[in-house]
Amino acid sequence: MKYTHNNNELRIKDINKKVGLRGWVSRKRNLGGLIFIDLRDMHGITQLVVAPENENYETAQMLRNEYVIEVEGKVIERVSKNKNMPTGDIEIEVIKLNLLSKAENPPMIIQNETDALEEFRLKYRYLDLRRPVQQNYLIKRSQIVQSIRTSLINNGFLEIETPILSKSTPEGARDYLVPSRLHEGEFYALPQSPQIYKQLLMISGFEKYYQIAKCFRDEDLRSDRQPEFTQVDIEGAFVSEEDIFKYIEDLFYNLFKDVMKMEIEVPFLKMKYDDAISKYGSDKPEMRFANLIESYNYLIREDIPLFNGVDHVRGIVFENAQSITRRVIDSLTEVVKKNHGDALAFIRHNGSEVTGSIAKFLNEDDLAKINLEKDEILFLVPGKYENVSKALGALRLEVAKLLDLIPENDYKFLWVTDWPLLEYDSEEERFYAAHHPFTAPKSVEDLKNNPKEVRARAYDIVLNGYEVGGGSIRIHNQDVQQLMFETLGLSNEDIKERFGFFVEALKYGTPPHGGIALGLDRIVMILTNTTNIRDVIAFPKTQNARDIMNQSPSSVELEQLEELHIKVSKNEKN
Amino acid sequence: MKYTHNNNELRIKDINKKVGLRGWVSRKRNLGGLIFIDLRDMHGITQLVVAPENENYETAQMLRNEYVIEVEGKVIERVSKNKNMPTGDIEIEVIKLNLLSKAENPPMIIQNETDALEEFRLKYRYLDLRRPVQQNYLIKRSQIVQSIRTSLINNGFLEIETPILSKSTPEGARDYLVPSRLHEGEFYALPQSPQIYKQLLMISGFEKYYQIAKCFRDEDLRSDRQPEFTQVDIEGAFVSEEDIFKYIEDLFYNLFKDVMKMEIEVPFLKMKYDDAISKYGSDKPEMRFANLIESYNYLIREDIPLFNGVDHVRGIVFENAQSITRRVIDSLTEVVKKNHGDALAFIRHNGSEVTGSIAKFLNEDDLAKINLEKDEILFLVPGKYENVSKALGALRLEVAKLLDLIPENDYKFLWVTDWPLLEYDSEEERFYAAHHPFTAPKSVEDLKNNPKEVRARAYDIVLNGYEVGGGSIRIHNQDVQQLMFETLGLSNEDIKERFGFFVEALKYGTPPHGGIALGLDRIVMILTNTTNIRDVIAFPKTQNARDIMNQSPSSVELEQLEELHIKVSKNEKN
Repeated sequence: MKYTHNNNELRIKDINKKVGLRGWVSRKRNLGGLIFIDLRDMHGITQLVVAPENENYETAQMLRNEYVIEVEGKVIERVSKNKNMPTGDIEIEVIKLNLLSKAENPPMIIQNETDALEEFRLKYRYLDLRRPVQQNYLIKRSQIVQSIRTSLINNGFLEIETPILSKSTPEGARDYLVPSRLHEGEFYALPQSPQIYKQLLMISGFEKYYQIAKCFRDEDLRSDRQPEFTQVDIEGAFVSEEDIFKYIEDLFYNLFKDVMKMEIEVPFLKMKYDDAISKYGSDKPEMRFANLIESYNYLIREDIPLFNGVDHVRGIVFENAQSITRRVIDSLTEVVKKNHGDALAFIRHNGSEVTGSIAKFLNEDDLAKINLEKDEILFLVPGKYENVSKALGALRLEVAKLLDLIPENDYKFLWVTDWPLLEYDSEEERFYAAHHPFTAPKSVEDLKNNPKEVRARAYDIVLNGYEVGGGSIRIHNQDVQQLMFETLGLSNEDIKERFGFFVEALKYGTPPHGGIALGLDRIVMILTNTTNIRDVIAFPKTQNARDIMNQSPSSVELEQLEELHIKVSKNEKN
Repeated sequence: MKYTHNNNELRIKDINKKVGLRGWVSRKRNLGGLIFIDLRDMHGITQLVVAPENENYETAQMLRNEYVIEVEGKVIERVSKNKNMPTGDIEIEVIKLNLLSKAENPPMIIQNETDALEEFRLKYRYLDLRRPVQQNYLIKRSQIVQSIRTSLINNGFLEIETPILSKSTPEGARDYLVPSRLHEGEFYALPQSPQIYKQLLMISGFEKYYQIAKCFRDEDLRSDRQPEFTQVDIEGAFVSEEDIFKYIEDLFYNLFKDVMKMEIEVPFLKMKYDDAISKYGSDKPEMRFANLIESYNYLIREDIPLFNGVDHVRGIVFENAQSITRRVIDSLTEVVKKNHGDALAFIRHNGSEVTGSIAKFLNEDDLAKINLEKDEILFLVPGKYENVSKALGALRLEVAKLLDLIPENDYKFLWVTDWPLLEYDSEEERFYAAHHPFTAPKSVEDLKNNPKEVRARAYDIVLNGYEVGGGSIRIHNQDVQQLMFETLGLSNEDIKERFGFFVEALKYGTPPHGGIALGLDRIVMILTNTTNIRDVIAFPKTQNARDIMNQSPSSVELEQLEELHIKVSKNEKN
């Protein structure tokens, strides 16, 4: 039987054509003797009709949902058209009908709307994936990946594969390990990222590298994490920050044009990390609305008891805040406290006067400075700078949701730059790399003399308040790399054992280089407007890292373990 | 400093242009006070010249091999041109010279010709990869991959990622395992191929899937195997063999056009497995020359002692065989014996008479039938059909090399079809799947009643005598799949434990489907004309599965193992 059209293709102009279609029976109805069949494929649905006098009537009668069929038929105009379907003006008068595959009654409803729980849908993932909404996630994902590849190839990047069977790193606590059969007692590790390999490729002279790379991290999973995830991994030699920005802006510009049919504004805005914290209370500012955090330190006074003696008072004003009731403010107080804010104060202008928790303490001068207009509310949080800012950042997003301040189908990109290079752990009295240990400092002097303040040549790319990627210019000088390792408290033995070959590689003529990694799963989530990472992965794991469909991980034969020179050991700590 | 050209770009027409270049110092010479520098990047080499009066002379003097520099300069015509270099007509009079990175004296020569042993080159892989010949392998690989993607996308295939953390299979003896931290005593397995996932995607309704997929097999390595390898994985629903052939022919047609700038002939030739064995003594016939195997069973006679009572006598004729001396024939006898042939006989026509090991036994009739012409030689092997054929197949290739019968830069594709579905292990008295257990039989009746003879809807794609891919139309009926598992001697418990979910998936409306997997590493090898698989992989493992550069696999911290609920156990069998 000749296949001529997919099930989303036929229109009124095709009337009288003889066509060949195929797909799954999505629905069957018998109306006054006529059998109507919704035939579904990944493209859409076409209605078939079989009259009692049709020689295929008997076959049509025995069809059930999810049977696979192919048909030949004639396109005819529908009597009662369906405006909600692209093919709703026509139907197919069946001439031939072949049953290709029967189906048992599926255990879940295969429609966009389904009442199946996610756990159940993951068990029958192959049925879940038949739902048009799920198909769309993966179809879009494929388009997104192809657009990204095209941009990078057009900008001269080479696709180079790096190993999956890799080496455990010193921060290897989150490594997945793979026992070696040939080398007793030794293990490969699955890469948390191709970081070292991509830097080695720059040292090797491949000036522009990219890879859509599988990465692995054995973390306790949050709802938007998976044990294996995919990143668009990019590195360039002889590049500055501006070069990387340009490549990525290009990539997203083309991506939105190709996949979203939208033109986005480039270049993207840039903001220093300190400004992001100061104005947005977040290292990933949501830029689709304003309402910035400002200082109200002039309210630190003895006569305002809540603020007396605190380090900082900072706040945000919102307009049209009538819907923010006392009860809402109570819940916002919870948000502030969950985000390490000490307390939440507010004042509001109800049209005639200023009221609120601290209104009675404010004098004319204060009110003039604050200058609230009708229906505006000012939230204030006292405390330490970092805590106050992050609490207000969380409150800002929460209020924006309540007041519906965030426009849909709007996409605001931002580069966040000038990150801290190191994080100090005051309990352990040691530094950690804020990004990773190969990130170049803005100043080597600062790294030596003032490590708590040294800034990194690092950047994150933020989209609608989500971090969708991050990267840096790397250290290309072995002395600086050595200094960095020492600052991180790695012993020479550690360095040699774990990075020895890499430190050596830096010796033989390393070009300046830098790069970025984009979180593909996150990007697909944003562009398909879902908040569930499992939606955009064909065969995801659950939050406890299990594949419910094939029941992996699973027990294996004892001989397999023997060959690998390992034994299962009950955890003695429990 | 502004970068304007790569080091393979400037020509005589660019004279007097002011340009910016960068790269590695490949060579430095001082000729009569003038310093000449070969500046290398991944594109090529440009010569720089610095005169003593130049203000950069001092910097130029201190440069050593593999230093990284950037220069600004003026393009001038060379006095003594170098016709072997694309940029050999010009050189750059340096105006500015910045040292970007110093280099210690590299431990190996960074030129196409190097005397470093492979083991040493793998240790310093990042230097080895600077050699232009090595860079070319990976640049070509990137081009090949991009061409393949474009063909598949243009033919409507979706790129869909399948999991790397997967499930151990019953033939899991070659699985790499990954212990689970969250599920004590349980293991993921790295996939040997995405076979089940891609079939599930067809069941899910994604009609055309592709993925450039990493696969893993813990085999004792041959020179052309790696523990991780890459395959172009393809599957389609509602397809026949002819559809798959068409997609793959398209893919290779475009690949040769894009990367090799050649037009290859499509459609490809097709040959049944039995004919391949019969005529070429191989399941992957080398088609770039003829010299087919023929039957000489009429020579099975009492009066030819070597052939008396044997099952088969088969042979091949070669023309212009003067160079095949007695000594060569001795070495060919070794080839035949190594390939399970019992013996090698020959006759030849030296211009006046027929001589050779069995010449004296042949009568006029025999000679007329054989009909050798001047300088032709006929090789004959007696024995069992399969052994004779394969021994002659090996001899055929060996003689072709000796007589230089294989034209270079010629690419002959062939589909080999109609493979046996099963292999019978007479010791274990059981069947194995010749391909894999999801391959559809040509006839279900034969699978039931005559499993030793049943043929598969399987096909291999062969290029110049190498298998570069294989696939099949799959079983889409659960009863047939069950029969197949039973024929393979899998108990119902095994089936349920290992494939239960897959057998269940087949129940709910499985479309007819099939696919293929192409060996990317092999394809790149053939197109870059190397016989070493490690050449076409950025960071390969050695034959005992070790990465010499980063020394993986390696020992890990005890705490890491404890977290994973495993212990290293000395192998009790040794």
